Amino acid sequence: MKSIKIFAPATVANLSCGFDVLGCCLDTVGDEMVITLTQEPGVRITKLEGADLPMETHKNVAGVAVEALLEKYGKSIGVAIEIYKKIKAGSGIGSSAASSAGAVWAVNHLLDKPFTPQELVGFAMVGEKLASGNAHADNVAPALLGGFTLVRSYTPLDVIKLHTPKDLVMTVIHPQIEVKTSDARSVIKQKVTLQQAIHQWGNVGGLISGLYTEDYELIGRSLEDVIIEPLRSILIPEFKNVKEAAMTHGALGCGISGSGPSIFALSKGMDTATKVADAIRKVYNTTGLDFDIHTSIINNYGVKIID
Amino acid sequence: MKSIKIFAPATVANLSCGFDVLGCCLDTVGDEMVITLTQEPGVRITKLEGADLPMETHKNVAGVAVEALLEKYGKSIGVAIEIYKKIKAGSGIGSSAASSAGAVWAVNHLLDKPFTPQELVGFAMVGEKLASGNAHADNVAPALLGGFTLVRSYTPLDVIKLHTPKDLVMTVIHPQIEVKTSDARSVIKQKVTLQQAIHQWGNVGGLISGLYTEDYELIGRSLEDVIIEPLRSILIPEFKNVKEAAMTHGALGCGISGSGPSIFALSKGMDTATKVADAIRKVYNTTGLDFDIHTSIINNYGVKIID
Repeated sequence: MKSIKIFAPATVANLSCGFDVLGCCLDTVGDEMVITLTQEPGVRITKLEGADLPMETHKNVAGVAVEALLEKYGKSIGVAIEIYKKIKAGSGIGSSAASSAGAVWAVNHLLDKPFTPQELVGFAMVGEKLASGNAHADNVAPALLGGFTLVRSYTPLDVIKLHTPKDLVMTVIHPQIEVKTSDARSVIKQKVTLQQAIHQWGNVGGLISGLYTEDYELIGRSLEDVIIEPLRSILIPEFKNVKEAAMTHGALGCGISGSGPSIFALSKGMDTATKVADAIRKVYNTTGLDFDIHTSIINNYGVKIID
Repeated sequence: MKSIKIFAPATVANLSCGFDVLGCCLDTVGDEMVITLTQEPGVRITKLEGADLPMETHKNVAGVAVEALLEKYGKSIGVAIEIYKKIKAGSGIGSSAASSAGAVWAVNHLLDKPFTPQELVGFAMVGEKLASGNAHADNVAPALLGGFTLVRSYTPLDVIKLHTPKDLVMTVIHPQIEVKTSDARSVIKQKVTLQQAIHQWGNVGGLISGLYTEDYELIGRSLEDVIIEPLRSILIPEFKNVKEAAMTHGALGCGISGSGPSIFALSKGMDTATKVADAIRKVYNTTGLDFDIHTSIINNYGVKIID
């Protein structure tokens, strides 16, 4: 029976200006999974450690994502999935995306790659729909393609891998509070002014241009969100102080990771990213809240085989 | 007395998805100007051919743009400006921008370049404010920098020159009808849905990524405007038929140039752009309206010295 062990990376979606379209892949934070092709047809979650998540296939994001892949594949195949969660659920760094992206990537690899990365994004989105009710791609795309990614369009699905400057380092703080999805959604307004939208797409353009030209200053100037962050940041304790500490200590930019509560800061070089981590830690040490801080280069390959 | 003759290029702003932020520079359509440093201080429009525009300095876009430059320069200088208009006013391909951008570029050149291209954009915007009441930069930026440009931000002004794939060719039809600026403005809604905005900034990201990677198909897929074009195109006769003819004959994309009434189509290669021009011409030949059609490679340098 063919089997592989993989690293399924955490991801940071939105990146301030690119709500619902931009994301990037982390290197030092992620789950481990063991995926095995079995003789008995069907998809089974055979082990799940590190999180209190459902093991029934149709209730598990990795389970439904692999079922979507196998339905398209057409042949009667069996898959056993072991999940060793290290990314906390509800952290805002793509916990569900790591599971669904990792599972479909591994099955595709074991089947000798019948599907393109873009098709894998489509299958993994089935897991995202189960997790949040919304088949978004801004976490599964960077998890599968690596680096920085753009979801240009959902209908039809059009996912672009962007260029990743090698010196970018991400610092992420995960305050261990629960923000209800319904609250994170209800603070967002469904109408924006045309001026806000123009401001935002100017920054999306600047960020992408900065990635291709490796213009770190331009990347920093473009990491601005005039639409979502002002509304959603009120749900994240000390957001303003964390951002101020990150920027004061040299971060290029700082914003909400996904729908929060994690906060990301992007820096040029590991030294700066480490200083930023220390500064953010000091802010959160005053709160009494539990939190994790991760520092990671950008993972330019996505899911990978380990051991 | 130092004097130069220049070509001041026409430009296509917005480029479908990039309303108010994107633009590109044409090579075969533009005005000619002769700019001379004079002993007598002050800015004078000494000749104006080809258009019925004001010659009083404070009412002329080139006049006020150069006055803004000289005010910053600080020294008492005289400038004489001759303008030979070839771009029709109100065409939607940056007629006023060509005059103000050309004038400040030439004066800066004659003064041995005390100002950066970005500063010149700021001076030329004073001309745009006189022309339309709005100091927009999406035409003067490509006229001054050449190629494709992004206005990332207005406050502070942040203009980025993007990469220009060499095979892109623009076809522009200018229907000689008058669309009142007030009408072009009043059809635009000042609020958009968040979903429309996300759709649009996904395309801005796709277009800019496509420019850097020279992915012509991606450029084509990204030339889509779900916000302005559906509202403004009703003011342009035969817009839908022109767009259909352009796309049928191989254009990568087609949309409104600036605020119209000109329509642009972007193609890969001169052969396709010429076929697109022929197809568009056939559509407009049925209308009885006067029109011009221009076909041009992208001008990657902007204003240039001639003769």
